Amino acid sequence: MKRILIIGIGAGDPDYLTIQAVNALNQADVFFVMDKGVAKEKLIALRREIIERYATTRSYRIVEATSPERQREGIGYLNAVEALNRSKQEVFEHLIADELQDGECGAFLVWGDPSLYDSTMRIIEEIDRSGRHAFEYEVIPGISSVQALAAKHRIALNTIGQPVEITTGRRLAEGFPAKVDSVVVMLDAQNAFREVVDEDLDIYWGAYVGTPDEILVAGKLREVADEIERVRAAAREQHGWIMDTYLLKRRGESQE
Amino acid sequence: MKRILIIGIGAGDPDYLTIQAVNALNQADVFFVMDKGVAKEKLIALRREIIERYATTRSYRIVEATSPERQREGIGYLNAVEALNRSKQEVFEHLIADELQDGECGAFLVWGDPSLYDSTMRIIEEIDRSGRHAFEYEVIPGISSVQALAAKHRIALNTIGQPVEITTGRRLAEGFPAKVDSVVVMLDAQNAFREVVDEDLDIYWGAYVGTPDEILVAGKLREVADEIERVRAAAREQHGWIMDTYLLKRRGESQE
Repeated sequence: MKRILIIGIGAGDPDYLTIQAVNALNQADVFFVMDKGVAKEKLIALRREIIERYATTRSYRIVEATSPERQREGIGYLNAVEALNRSKQEVFEHLIADELQDGECGAFLVWGDPSLYDSTMRIIEEIDRSGRHAFEYEVIPGISSVQALAAKHRIALNTIGQPVEITTGRRLAEGFPAKVDSVVVMLDAQNAFREVVDEDLDIYWGAYVGTPDEILVAGKLREVADEIERVRAAAREQHGWIMDTYLLKRRGESQE
Repeated sequence: MKRILIIGIGAGDPDYLTIQAVNALNQADVFFVMDKGVAKEKLIALRREIIERYATTRSYRIVEATSPERQREGIGYLNAVEALNRSKQEVFEHLIADELQDGECGAFLVWGDPSLYDSTMRIIEEIDRSGRHAFEYEVIPGISSVQALAAKHRIALNTIGQPVEITTGRRLAEGFPAKVDSVVVMLDAQNAFREVVDEDLDIYWGAYVGTPDEILVAGKLREVADEIERVRAAAREQHGWIMDTYLLKRRGESQE
């Protein structure tokens, strides 16, 4: 039987790894390292650093695979994601069939937490369900960028007894959700906070949170929106990529 | 100057501690241990186990304080929470003033993640803002019960590109939120899933997740609601307390 571990390695800072994740790293015979795009080199280096630092008790090999990229033009978002996941599944199946021997343990390292906007669990479940490969698998949670952001800004996600919505830039552009006073936005490539700048909101924004390049900006959205846009563009220019997250909170609601 | 660390210690399993949290434990001169109610003894024992296991590099003392409890009758929920937080703030101020010396580091250990339905950050911020005590403070994120639940069920919180709402049992009882297909429910003392049992939902439920007492149930809500209610009541009876969380997902939506 083959064994697969889907390990959440946290949002940037190697110290975000849990003891459970460290123990899991030390069970792996093979690490599957997949990244893509302009951030690829940097992200692979970070993963290698984590593996070298923590996987210390046994020998292992690292198998790099190129992660397919989402087609961005001439196809709808959902279709593009579905096509992407089919391509990813092919890559994963190849790794499991050809790069992992019977009795071995293979690990996929996932940034942040595997349960939020990450396709690894879905793809592995799909392969498992297909019955084409025999394996067991386990998921290890990790510190998500949402939690890292909240900790760095020292702000609770929810106001007392109130819900929190975690959403995407794409969805926020359709308007601030009703009946919710706290919204976390991930995967925003387009400064979607611009679309809600007329609402009475506070923003807690962070980029590269938990890494040495971390940038934090907080304040009334109306007052800091320009600054965030400027800082974000400059950082993207400087690093060639950006990973940012933010929390929006309605003002005037009781914070207590 | 005094220093305060608010340390997320994860949702039950001591292996959920991050390296950052372990490092933080080893900076503390004093651990403030506050719990309440029927689970108090068990929770204090678990915290002591974590402290003993990981705080190994220096001497420390443990100060236990009784956490005030929310008044449950004759007062509205929000008023009760506000009154509770004022009482908690008094306890915290006493600890900071009388149990922490200048130059020392004190640690509050928070179950799960300090950013989700926990008042520690709010109270410390309030005390900081009052100017009555001079201290610095830092927040260390932890694995929340939400992430532990998702990992154990090996299920992503979101469907692709869709939002997730994290809410309370009290709010769910008002109906399944609109425009959201995935809802995580915390702090549900009343089996609020009963209120949405007629909707076409899957439920992924867990109690004591990450501990040896862990119980997981998943399935169509309509088909497993009775089982969850029964299992939950029996577990509560057996242990004297229960801590459970669940994810509800609309069926029929594309999971891909």
